[in-house]
Amino acid sequence: MLQLTSCNCVLIVLLILLSLYLFDDQKSRFSFHDMSAEVVDSNPYSRLMALQRMGIVENYERIREFSVAVVGIGGVGSVAAEMLTRCGIGRLLLYDYDKVELANMNRLFFRPDQVGMTKTDAAVQTLSDINPDVVLESYTLNITSVQGFETFMSSLKNKTFRPSKEGSGVDLVLSCVDNYEARMVVNQACNELNQAWMESGVSEDAVSGHIQLLIPGETACFACAPPLVVASGVDERTLKREGVCAASLPTTMGVVAGLLVQNTLKFLLGFGHVSPYLGYNSLKDFFPTMTMKPNPQCSNAACLEQQKEYILAKPARDAAAKAKMEAEAAAAAAAGDMPLHVDNEWNISIVDDNEPAKSICGTSSDALPEGLTRELPSADEFQKPQASGATDSAIDDLEDLRRQLEALNAA
Amino acid sequence: MLQLTSCNCVLIVLLILLSLYLFDDQKSRFSFHDMSAEVVDSNPYSRLMALQRMGIVENYERIREFSVAVVGIGGVGSVAAEMLTRCGIGRLLLYDYDKVELANMNRLFFRPDQVGMTKTDAAVQTLSDINPDVVLESYTLNITSVQGFETFMSSLKNKTFRPSKEGSGVDLVLSCVDNYEARMVVNQACNELNQAWMESGVSEDAVSGHIQLLIPGETACFACAPPLVVASGVDERTLKREGVCAASLPTTMGVVAGLLVQNTLKFLLGFGHVSPYLGYNSLKDFFPTMTMKPNPQCSNAACLEQQKEYILAKPARDAAAKAKMEAEAAAAAAAGDMPLHVDNEWNISIVDDNEPAKSICGTSSDALPEGLTRELPSADEFQKPQASGATDSAIDDLEDLRRQLEALNAA
Repeated sequence: MLQLTSCNCVLIVLLILLSLYLFDDQKSRFSFHDMSAEVVDSNPYSRLMALQRMGIVENYERIREFSVAVVGIGGVGSVAAEMLTRCGIGRLLLYDYDKVELANMNRLFFRPDQVGMTKTDAAVQTLSDINPDVVLESYTLNITSVQGFETFMSSLKNKTFRPSKEGSGVDLVLSCVDNYEARMVVNQACNELNQAWMESGVSEDAVSGHIQLLIPGETACFACAPPLVVASGVDERTLKREGVCAASLPTTMGVVAGLLVQNTLKFLLGFGHVSPYLGYNSLKDFFPTMTMKPNPQCSNAACLEQQKEYILAKPARDAAAKAKMEAEAAAAAAAGDMPLHVDNEWNISIVDDNEPAKSICGTSSDALPEGLTRELPSADEFQKPQASGATDSAIDDLEDLRRQLEALNAA
Repeated sequence: MLQLTSCNCVLIVLLILLSLYLFDDQKSRFSFHDMSAEVVDSNPYSRLMALQRMGIVENYERIREFSVAVVGIGGVGSVAAEMLTRCGIGRLLLYDYDKVELANMNRLFFRPDQVGMTKTDAAVQTLSDINPDVVLESYTLNITSVQGFETFMSSLKNKTFRPSKEGSGVDLVLSCVDNYEARMVVNQACNELNQAWMESGVSEDAVSGHIQLLIPGETACFACAPPLVVASGVDERTLKREGVCAASLPTTMGVVAGLLVQNTLKFLLGFGHVSPYLGYNSLKDFFPTMTMKPNPQCSNAACLEQQKEYILAKPARDAAAKAKMEAEAAAAAAAGDMPLHVDNEWNISIVDDNEPAKSICGTSSDALPEGLTRELPSADEFQKPQASGATDSAIDDLEDLRRQLEALNAA
């Protein structure tokens, strides 16, 4: 009897613990294999599916099909991974070899109770709690080591998640690493696999950053325009650790992660303008943009190969684009829609990028279409030596000029 | 003996649980009352103190003195609060009356296991784990109710944290609410308290947002230029809940929170350019900026009062600025530094904003300083009727003009 009571005592304690665990688990887990658009408080996807109703995204549910690799789970990568997880991305591949430290607590994502865990383990712990619908693959490795690079490559090639996908097994690689060597490795892998990727970075003084889209053969690769100064002869990580650590801020890293994943969503779901490069200067709140074409003298052999492929595939690309446009026009006509412009009113024509630009100042461009006159004489007219005794006609011309100046001044 | 054994059994289970709890607690808690700049993995502030070494911030430790109120702990407010917590802000005041729902899981910060908790309780739970150095004050109330507004006002006035502080008890109020009514209430409170604050917002289609700095009397208040269309006759929250819920994205909200807290750090710690208004259009990656002066016909009486105060305090402000400049110059001279410019080479003078601008085209501005000539005649010269018989002199002038045109065309 006494024995039973004490056993009961232990059992009760264990039952309480078990029920607490189960109750907690019930609250923390939700799993919607289809993304419901229903507007109820219990639907974690209602605010995302609303993007369709608002006309921003045509088919938000496609996000379930996509695989994104995040290389480097630090201040930018961890937040990018969390954003993609909360957006319901299909599959995330996470790469890092580092451990969580208290010194990381000034950036979002990791918690002090995760100190000592690998960043990949800690990330999987947090992300699977947030959204168990996302397939998480964790790779605790250094991509710059020989073995690490091999595993990195084979993980990117693996198409088990969506066997019908063309090309590699992932739709996009996000580079969120903090050193030049690792960026060059991601660049090498993506050039070899013809894999679109996005670069991100934050400055050592923590107050600026950037994101960049790289499509092998189409845009500059990371080796096409390398940084002017890189650490040489020493391990960059050692350099950082020995007393001269870089500054970092959760704000700058959060903004860069946000811009990176926003560009990712635009790229994958096909809405808005995908930025080829976007900088963030936080001291001035200045956001520079630019585009970079591939460098035909790039030092990276795989890049040169992709550049060649890209040029060779141009006729096929043009034909596909034309066919798509015609199909859309036909579909619109079939649906009874009037095309927006029936003829090419402004005489806009498509010019091949590779053709040399025609001279703007040449004689051929001097002939204006009917009904147009020049506001000012062309440079050529004044560069011709004036004939002597032409004062009278010159006066007429200049009277005309004077009237134009008067009009300008009066305006 | 048997009794002892079963007691032991219970004791052992309890001891194991206690040790697990303590071990967990030891890992999750760090408390540095002074901010160490030491570069070790165990220092959560090393990457922030590096901002001083890098010359970005003069005195980062001042952040421990500041109190920031975050009104609305949603998609923007919660992330803003986490960023400030990780930056080691002195004190955070959190206001919300809502509960965590699964429908919030598409934004950063809240976890599924917090569903059902008030947002303030869940935030305090997460933030105190992240950084126990921050003093957290939680207000579970609706600031738009009469009682809520009173508590809101008295909490802002409370100066227990830093009795020597001038003005209210907080250094900045961040408005992260999602409706017009609540923004107007924050505006009212800040106008009454002469309290600087920042507004933030994200569009209903989730793809754009903005932040704005409002300083009573100095900049436009929220009532000076109200939105053109607001919900009328219905509760905005009801409007949102009944089937037509707004879209939201963790990316846009993360970017807006990052820009908001970055502006907050620049404002509090005195570095970089504090943006008066910064927009974020994610579809085009366009970031508009602007400044808005107060509206002398503003409908808000407290705003008009602050505008009057601001103008009255102008001489004192100017004198203080002049004294500060002179003191800095004297200090530099005492330290043996050469001032950058010994005299005012470019003749720059300070012009009162309130003085009517001098006419640029008027006769007074026609007199040019010695050594300068006009590139083109002024508008007035051509607007004067030409005297008859002045053809010859006109020809000379026009010859001159022609030469100028030639030069322009040849350039």
